[in-house]
Amino acid sequence: MRIDEFRKNLNDNGVDIAVLYNTGSFEPNPNFFYFTGYSGYGCLAVPKKSKPFILAPKMEAERASKSSKIKVAVADKETFLESLASKIKKTGARARTVGIDKNSISLNQFIRIKKIFKNKKFHDISSMCQSLRKIKTSEEIEYIKKSCSYADKIIQECIKNFRYFRTESEAAAFLEFESKSMGLDLSFKPIVASGSNASMPHYEPKRTPIKKGFCVIDFGVKYNGYCSDITRTIYFGEPSGKEIEIYQLLLDVQQHLVEEAGSGKNCGELYDSANAALGKYKKYFTHGLGHGIGVEIHELPNLTSNSKDVLENGIPFTIEPGIYISGKLGIRIEDSVLFNNGKAEPLTKTTKDLLII
Amino acid sequence: MRIDEFRKNLNDNGVDIAVLYNTGSFEPNPNFFYFTGYSGYGCLAVPKKSKPFILAPKMEAERASKSSKIKVAVADKETFLESLASKIKKTGARARTVGIDKNSISLNQFIRIKKIFKNKKFHDISSMCQSLRKIKTSEEIEYIKKSCSYADKIIQECIKNFRYFRTESEAAAFLEFESKSMGLDLSFKPIVASGSNASMPHYEPKRTPIKKGFCVIDFGVKYNGYCSDITRTIYFGEPSGKEIEIYQLLLDVQQHLVEEAGSGKNCGELYDSANAALGKYKKYFTHGLGHGIGVEIHELPNLTSNSKDVLENGIPFTIEPGIYISGKLGIRIEDSVLFNNGKAEPLTKTTKDLLII
Repeated sequence: MRIDEFRKNLNDNGVDIAVLYNTGSFEPNPNFFYFTGYSGYGCLAVPKKSKPFILAPKMEAERASKSSKIKVAVADKETFLESLASKIKKTGARARTVGIDKNSISLNQFIRIKKIFKNKKFHDISSMCQSLRKIKTSEEIEYIKKSCSYADKIIQECIKNFRYFRTESEAAAFLEFESKSMGLDLSFKPIVASGSNASMPHYEPKRTPIKKGFCVIDFGVKYNGYCSDITRTIYFGEPSGKEIEIYQLLLDVQQHLVEEAGSGKNCGELYDSANAALGKYKKYFTHGLGHGIGVEIHELPNLTSNSKDVLENGIPFTIEPGIYISGKLGIRIEDSVLFNNGKAEPLTKTTKDLLII
Repeated sequence: MRIDEFRKNLNDNGVDIAVLYNTGSFEPNPNFFYFTGYSGYGCLAVPKKSKPFILAPKMEAERASKSSKIKVAVADKETFLESLASKIKKTGARARTVGIDKNSISLNQFIRIKKIFKNKKFHDISSMCQSLRKIKTSEEIEYIKKSCSYADKIIQECIKNFRYFRTESEAAAFLEFESKSMGLDLSFKPIVASGSNASMPHYEPKRTPIKKGFCVIDFGVKYNGYCSDITRTIYFGEPSGKEIEIYQLLLDVQQHLVEEAGSGKNCGELYDSANAALGKYKKYFTHGLGHGIGVEIHELPNLTSNSKDVLENGIPFTIEPGIYISGKLGIRIEDSVLFNNGKAEPLTKTTKDLLII
């Protein structure tokens, strides 16, 4: 995406060449993937004035070529870095200032890269990349809409079958199976947190019987590399009047915030508004109100305390207030929404009525 | 694991305090997880002379305490780093030299951490941690054996049901579902690469019908955080005489290498031996012969060209020669084995006879 805009930004910032690494682990470097569409081991070099290229080891060259529109060069020297140095030399790019992503490059990678770019200046392009990625192209919005629609479908199937799951792990496995069968990746490991486990917002499902009480299901898939994110909280057993009341309060807050997100308030103000609306429960709301989504599950903007981030057309993000009472209960209700013409349009559409299983 | 040995190593290397970060993404920082057993957001501080502690944000404190034997402190200042600085001050540790893992810390994290440790010397502890992790404790070996036995069971189920899968994605989803239902994590995304796709060693399964020909299934689970790794190549359709011959050659090479691994040769010599045994096919063998396994799927030792790594008792590793002919076929046969008293004991035990589906 947007590699021409990226090159223009490099130029504006006096960067002669940008170099982005990917180590080929589970989660690709998001900026590398964003520009290349390839998620394996390699390096993207973007000279200001000549064509960008991906350098990949021999074993990954075929995969890289099939994943990316960018030309792939094969590493053919003793070390990967020697290959990189030699390929860059061949482009004729005279690099005085080298752009690197200081968020994703490890200190040791940097020490090694400094050796091949002797006496160069290094410019951090992490913010530049994040900002570029914040507002989505129409193609990206299509991917995210599709991703959300898959997430809706799969979470609904999970809830429909919930009574058959003996353990949290089984429910999580079901979500993964449905996703993977459709050739979709996960945005993150699904959270299925039952009973008192639900008070841990990032709980990891275990092979333990599903406990009575609220059960938080937080889930998302990746479609063409683009994330969706949805949370529904269902009730397993018989809720008390008090529990229904807390759920309803949170639901009202969440729905109100989806409307308020179109009001022109910035992200920090929306977070404050959530806290105010939660009243005496605000001390049980222990995380941010939401975050942008894209090739990463957490992107700009940040809907957190004091955030000055502003919502603009073409920004997809989440609205996910929660109430967590340690050792007792947890409830979270989350939608992915798209900011468009002063409205936050919900992209996830699964019912938010309290479902009692 | 081994935190006392770690502290001794810190002391021997003149390190006053070690600080390990984890950003809580899909894959935890392996050194952080190794010492803590906790995989969420946080920081492990190991002062040379006082007790180690984990610093975690409020939303993760309960989860961290339940995952780790190490004491958890909650971040209570404006920023996480201010909390860290304040907690470290309270331990009374006078830090002149700070140990950091330069492989896992990003350049920007380092820039931030330098601000709180003004005028300190930083010592790279990445190799120290990797070496500590190379030889496993008896507890770790039990976890890895169990992990391999689960991997065996699940890959066998997958092969048994193979005829029912319409697409590569479905076969991969099956492997994941079986794992997740048992509360097991994956060591890596399963590879199911059919027909000509199998010539890409790190191919990602797609929602495409399974092609006739060899199909590489590369899979592993994590049990208590410890990895297994197994690859079997099956045949979908009717293999030609030539194909059977190539498979048999690779199988002989693999079996011979498992025996040879006990001979006292170092890892580079074993890699050379694989190349020699592959004869005219060695140009189609495009990756290393194997790698250690542990909390990470790729650990020390490296069974690659020129590696000087030596096999010792208590080292689990893989032996995985392969033949990849671009656009035509791919075959890989891989076992996890444990070096013990001059023998490489296979931990994965699924049959290696060519299975024709």
